[in-house]
Amino acid sequence: MTTNQQPATTRAAGTLSDEELARIDAWWRAANYLAVGQIYLMDNPLLREPLRDEHVKPRLLGHWGTTPGLNFIYAHLNRAIMARDLDMMYVMGPGHGGPGPVAAAWLEGTYSEIYTDVSRDEAGMRRLFTQFSFPGGIPSHVAPETPGSIHEGGELGYALSHAYGAAFDNPDLIVAAVVGDGEAETGPLAASWHSTKFVDPARDGAVLPILHLNGYKIANPTVLGRIERDELDGLLRGYGHTPYYVEGADPEQMHQDFAATLDRCLDEITEIRRLAREEGRTQRPRWPMIVLVSPKGWTGPKEVDGLKVEGFWRSHQVPFANAREDDAHRAVLEEWLRSYRPEELFDQDGAPVASIRNLHPAGERRMSANPHANGGLLLQALRMPDFRDYAVPVDHPGTGTVESTRVLGTFLRDVMGNNMTNFRVFAPDENNSNRLGAVLEATDRAWMAPILPEDVGLAPDGRVMEILSEHTCQGWLEGYLLTGRHGFFSCYEAFIHIVDSMFNQHAKWLKVTDDIAWRRPVASLNYLLTSHVWRQDHNGFSHQDPGFIDHVVNKGAQVIRVYLPPDANTLLSVADHCLRSRQYVNVIVAGKQPQLQYLSMQDAIVHATKGIGIWQWASTDAGKEPDVVLACAGDVPTMETLAAAQILLGYFPDLRLRVVNVVDLMRLQDKRDHPHGLTDPEFDSLFTTDTPVVFAYHGYPWLIHRLTYRRTNHQNLAVRGYVEEGTTTTPFDMCVLNRIDRFHLAIDVLDRVPRLHAVSAHAREALHRKLIEHRQYIRTHGQDMPEVRNWQWTGHAGPSTSGPNPLEEPEP
Amino acid sequence: MTTNQQPATTRAAGTLSDEELARIDAWWRAANYLAVGQIYLMDNPLLREPLRDEHVKPRLLGHWGTTPGLNFIYAHLNRAIMARDLDMMYVMGPGHGGPGPVAAAWLEGTYSEIYTDVSRDEAGMRRLFTQFSFPGGIPSHVAPETPGSIHEGGELGYALSHAYGAAFDNPDLIVAAVVGDGEAETGPLAASWHSTKFVDPARDGAVLPILHLNGYKIANPTVLGRIERDELDGLLRGYGHTPYYVEGADPEQMHQDFAATLDRCLDEITEIRRLAREEGRTQRPRWPMIVLVSPKGWTGPKEVDGLKVEGFWRSHQVPFANAREDDAHRAVLEEWLRSYRPEELFDQDGAPVASIRNLHPAGERRMSANPHANGGLLLQALRMPDFRDYAVPVDHPGTGTVESTRVLGTFLRDVMGNNMTNFRVFAPDENNSNRLGAVLEATDRAWMAPILPEDVGLAPDGRVMEILSEHTCQGWLEGYLLTGRHGFFSCYEAFIHIVDSMFNQHAKWLKVTDDIAWRRPVASLNYLLTSHVWRQDHNGFSHQDPGFIDHVVNKGAQVIRVYLPPDANTLLSVADHCLRSRQYVNVIVAGKQPQLQYLSMQDAIVHATKGIGIWQWASTDAGKEPDVVLACAGDVPTMETLAAAQILLGYFPDLRLRVVNVVDLMRLQDKRDHPHGLTDPEFDSLFTTDTPVVFAYHGYPWLIHRLTYRRTNHQNLAVRGYVEEGTTTTPFDMCVLNRIDRFHLAIDVLDRVPRLHAVSAHAREALHRKLIEHRQYIRTHGQDMPEVRNWQWTGHAGPSTSGPNPLEEPEP
Repeated sequence: MTTNQQPATTRAAGTLSDEELARIDAWWRAANYLAVGQIYLMDNPLLREPLRDEHVKPRLLGHWGTTPGLNFIYAHLNRAIMARDLDMMYVMGPGHGGPGPVAAAWLEGTYSEIYTDVSRDEAGMRRLFTQFSFPGGIPSHVAPETPGSIHEGGELGYALSHAYGAAFDNPDLIVAAVVGDGEAETGPLAASWHSTKFVDPARDGAVLPILHLNGYKIANPTVLGRIERDELDGLLRGYGHTPYYVEGADPEQMHQDFAATLDRCLDEITEIRRLAREEGRTQRPRWPMIVLVSPKGWTGPKEVDGLKVEGFWRSHQVPFANAREDDAHRAVLEEWLRSYRPEELFDQDGAPVASIRNLHPAGERRMSANPHANGGLLLQALRMPDFRDYAVPVDHPGTGTVESTRVLGTFLRDVMGNNMTNFRVFAPDENNSNRLGAVLEATDRAWMAPILPEDVGLAPDGRVMEILSEHTCQGWLEGYLLTGRHGFFSCYEAFIHIVDSMFNQHAKWLKVTDDIAWRRPVASLNYLLTSHVWRQDHNGFSHQDPGFIDHVVNKGAQVIRVYLPPDANTLLSVADHCLRSRQYVNVIVAGKQPQLQYLSMQDAIVHATKGIGIWQWASTDAGKEPDVVLACAGDVPTMETLAAAQILLGYFPDLRLRVVNVVDLMRLQDKRDHPHGLTDPEFDSLFTTDTPVVFAYHGYPWLIHRLTYRRTNHQNLAVRGYVEEGTTTTPFDMCVLNRIDRFHLAIDVLDRVPRLHAVSAHAREALHRKLIEHRQYIRTHGQDMPEVRNWQWTGHAGPSTSGPNPLEEPEP
Repeated sequence: MTTNQQPATTRAAGTLSDEELARIDAWWRAANYLAVGQIYLMDNPLLREPLRDEHVKPRLLGHWGTTPGLNFIYAHLNRAIMARDLDMMYVMGPGHGGPGPVAAAWLEGTYSEIYTDVSRDEAGMRRLFTQFSFPGGIPSHVAPETPGSIHEGGELGYALSHAYGAAFDNPDLIVAAVVGDGEAETGPLAASWHSTKFVDPARDGAVLPILHLNGYKIANPTVLGRIERDELDGLLRGYGHTPYYVEGADPEQMHQDFAATLDRCLDEITEIRRLAREEGRTQRPRWPMIVLVSPKGWTGPKEVDGLKVEGFWRSHQVPFANAREDDAHRAVLEEWLRSYRPEELFDQDGAPVASIRNLHPAGERRMSANPHANGGLLLQALRMPDFRDYAVPVDHPGTGTVESTRVLGTFLRDVMGNNMTNFRVFAPDENNSNRLGAVLEATDRAWMAPILPEDVGLAPDGRVMEILSEHTCQGWLEGYLLTGRHGFFSCYEAFIHIVDSMFNQHAKWLKVTDDIAWRRPVASLNYLLTSHVWRQDHNGFSHQDPGFIDHVVNKGAQVIRVYLPPDANTLLSVADHCLRSRQYVNVIVAGKQPQLQYLSMQDAIVHATKGIGIWQWASTDAGKEPDVVLACAGDVPTMETLAAAQILLGYFPDLRLRVVNVVDLMRLQDKRDHPHGLTDPEFDSLFTTDTPVVFAYHGYPWLIHRLTYRRTNHQNLAVRGYVEEGTTTTPFDMCVLNRIDRFHLAIDVLDRVPRLHAVSAHAREALHRKLIEHRQYIRTHGQDMPEVRNWQWTGHAGPSTSGPNPLEEPEP
């Protein structure tokens, strides 16, 4: 049923000599054989005996359709690497074709070097086959376990943005990036083609996209596979490319055509680099790319049970499923495997024959061993300025107003200045809106399109990456980090949900790599979420969503860190910590609007390092059991909490209040669940075991319950937060709508402290009157009452306890 | 500073007569004047006196830059609607330009008809200005409050997919869809251009995209605004369009050019329809589109404080901020406003002068009053087959294996067959993978690209919408629902996170419309999440994520419904309920793999309707207080729970077990928090107040705590679920890795039931041995032990209680 053509011994003149062609084809057949073996076989790997049922896996899992194309490209890239001594990585968008790169790594020797039990012989081949998609073995996709990969291909759409992220600041690197025509239908991939406007040929590496048109997805034709060729050509030119087409099914012709086309593309890349680097050309080049049109499931069975398989979607996963039970299917499988002529490919011991075994670049030039694909190997620590130098002076807590993220911007400016080859900041057209504009004093925004006289801060070699695509920003950053560099992503809080699923995949990647010894730690992925829910003055309900934190904390605890610094100095301390960290996803939530400042730099460092603590200067429990604990996390809730405390003490000067501020949200969780979690005694020392706690939290209030439900005092915990009541209104009214404002918080305290019940009628009435007054005022004046708008902390008359925060610091 | 040209009285021959041009220009100036007024003014709306500080709002909020372009297009679409009696909707991608369509609706009279306090006179104009982006007023963006809109433009990217969703099955409708060049950089928008392959000119309406190249985003130039014109042209032709360009800044020329171009496009649409409908042409047409190249902030101040504003990003929001405090800025504002010559536009009463007041289509032809944009007006209930007719026979609970979603497919097939003009199903290339293939017996997949002989189930008029873009599927469906039709979206569970942020926006839209009297209820958005976390046999860790439920439950309780039917009959009952519902987002989670069936159709209806209940046939508490409650939600957890019960009763035949199954997840929440929530007495009647509860949950276990932390018995609740331990392994091993398997659940019970502590050593040891045996077996055989693989429920020896589920049914 399969009719793999044997390469002709004579042929028309071409790029490849007969011998080269034969060797490349043999390598390709070997990789395909090994891929089919991984999907189907658990024994008899070399087909030394007729295939019997027990040689076939009982559960057949994996994806064949894309694999022969991936292998074909691999073989040809290897030829080019050897011929030109290229530093090349391979990003495979259709990463469900996992058997392909695993086979290639085994042929290149890398696999056996890393996984010594999978030796390059018959026993190793048996293990290679058995482990694939098998309990205790390896995943079916390209995964962290796959040598040479930075890209899990399970969730499609990120191949190009990952490739560009890898290419930035790696001037000698070429990243070959296969885009499947299925993947090409996704939004993130469609957007990322325009990365051509953000890659600088003088400074950055090159991306060579290879659009693999095999025509089919799981059960449908692909859009790009069925549109007219002139449309496809227009589209690819519209993205900024010069496309070259390689089309067919005849291996010999395809080898010649692909080799010639690849050479042409690499020549063009060389010329683009020369023009940019030697002649100083700054115009954007039209980068070459390849369109490979080849059958899905190429070299597989043409038909099974009378239905078309090769060149159709039926070859997407396992082309036929009953090879163990059904003799006819097993015969198809055996014929298919033998069509690769394994006896020519592997020697007596099961190792690849010398001509295949040696047909790969040396050492780190092997794409499966390229150190860029294990970025931690290349990671250089950032040269950090001293964040204390950017401190905001804070004479009295709760006074002065500063845009905290603007202060952060000055720090990031100098981080940038110190690290002009391995640090970038990313934002979806929001860098300045997020008040990080100072960074533009150290660098520009990357921009390879034309620049007009009135433009501000655009340059081809800019290091601020701004495109109005959260997906592309995230993908670039991931690629940049996974190849061993550092970055910082600022985003409107609500719209970071756009990359929820990308975050998922990156967090999963980090979690898995934690357990892979040969994978070296990479820099953390740092998010600054700002323009947050409480201050969406311009935009309203659509821009109000603090739920990314909820999304994040579902992922592996060893990977996840969440910080809510209440002011600028705390933000600086947190940012410094995050930029130095490894293997985490750090989520920092901080407002960009002018806000009160609380802590001197010295206090901020202690507070941020401990992550949670009693604010003694705001507390009046004086070492005794408090009447109530007022807890807060986030800048706006912190201000409202302090204002509530001040209001309450105005009515009840002897009230014993304790104010607890949370910076490191995961401190709330149990130590058994998160490395930053507090022990129960530590938690109880802050929140007591029996006192009412009114907790004002930045986000959805239920999250605090989810983190603390096992704590002793949980039954006394009342949480206020964002309860999805929003619109375009004043900042204070947003708090009122969600009952997290000072008046509601104070009423909560009156409701919960028993000894106030009998004496608080007057205060309660006054607070309710304030709420009515607020509503009337804003509807008339369109802004908040001056007493709220200009509120500052004036301190308590009452005594406060003193002494340092006694908690243990969490692990870094 | 502003120099709005007065239309010349003589001009070269053009599409518009002098009078037409003058009237359109006047209408445009009026709309622009009203937009600027909304952003800046709170009094003196007609400038009857010089502008003083107190006339200017204290907080200036809103977006000017895109607004004049939106108004320009509106004016011209109106001309075409009147000239051709068109049924036309207007989708504004740059929806932050909210003042524009509000102004247009006021000019058309619709606004005052809906909001009678905003009359079409001076008082109404003052109110129109004051309410904008003002506490108690209206949002700054196009929003549910905006007449004529189905599209909140706050989160960019969905204009085209919404437009196509609106056009499907509305053969006479034309949807004009403005795509901002900022928005065009987003992934979802980039993908949605290819909707051209899925719209059938014979059956569907037309989308007329208008790419508005004003060149700038918040603080950057746009990519499409700066690439070479040949690239842009190739790109748009590559998407399947014939683009026409209108470029300039001179109003007179632009009016003539746009009018001529719009006529040309509408003529082409007419011809495309004629060819398809009268001549039976089935080839995909190249649909016309317009590229409007005009200055950002067109007609606004050219410079402020020496900095370029018009035609630059500084005009994006409020072009200058100090108009209240700064006399010079206020003078700029006054000059700007007067440049529109309000005295020509509004009469003595403040109403638009007759030539403007009457320059709009009549009644429902007004885009602000088009009933498609208030889809509930047009909503027709689905003609539902009786879901009982698709029942799976279940003689004994926990026996037989059925692919539940395949059964659902037969029901959906007939829903489709009965509703061939107002129901569609959507899937990202997963319809058949999700086992809904039966739907293809009633219809085909929509496909306007070439069809080959080997293709299966493709046709131009197919009603199964499959593109490998969750974003596009979601956007199409939202557009389809908001224009008054019905739909069903099936998706791999993990990848529905790709549309997290789109779900957010749709849920917010529904929540807001619940409170807008003139918005009529629309059909619910129904998700089937399948290929779920527990059965990702082919794909592994990247495909394992049950967190969408966590994401969903943060949104407004009145909008959110979550169902976890454990078997096919329950799934049918739930699906029937969801398809009949209005104004919800229904999330149904159900597996596609063969699984045990539990309930007869009669029992399934009772169980699904109550949403939660004791499974008496599996319980042995016989009306007494149980020793332990085994709760479960989700198909795989239900099976493991029953198996654990059977194991436990094998060791301890007199154990009093109660099995509680949850279908409607929100039943767990407090009735005060969710309309489906149980009261405390109801909850206690199921879960007791003091008995250990071992709860096996489909998703992240913390969610159950978040929903139940206030319940009396919460402290005795132990939840097992997915704890982010995944890979490619056997189905049962996935349960073991996350400790939700029968053996771990049984051990949990031994740990928690005090009277077993002294007698369970033997059982405990046996269970641990089973776990070791399992591990050894799967590593050798690659599949689950037969006793697990083939497990079926054999019933309990012990007595069981009987009687109906006594709970109140939740509101529909």
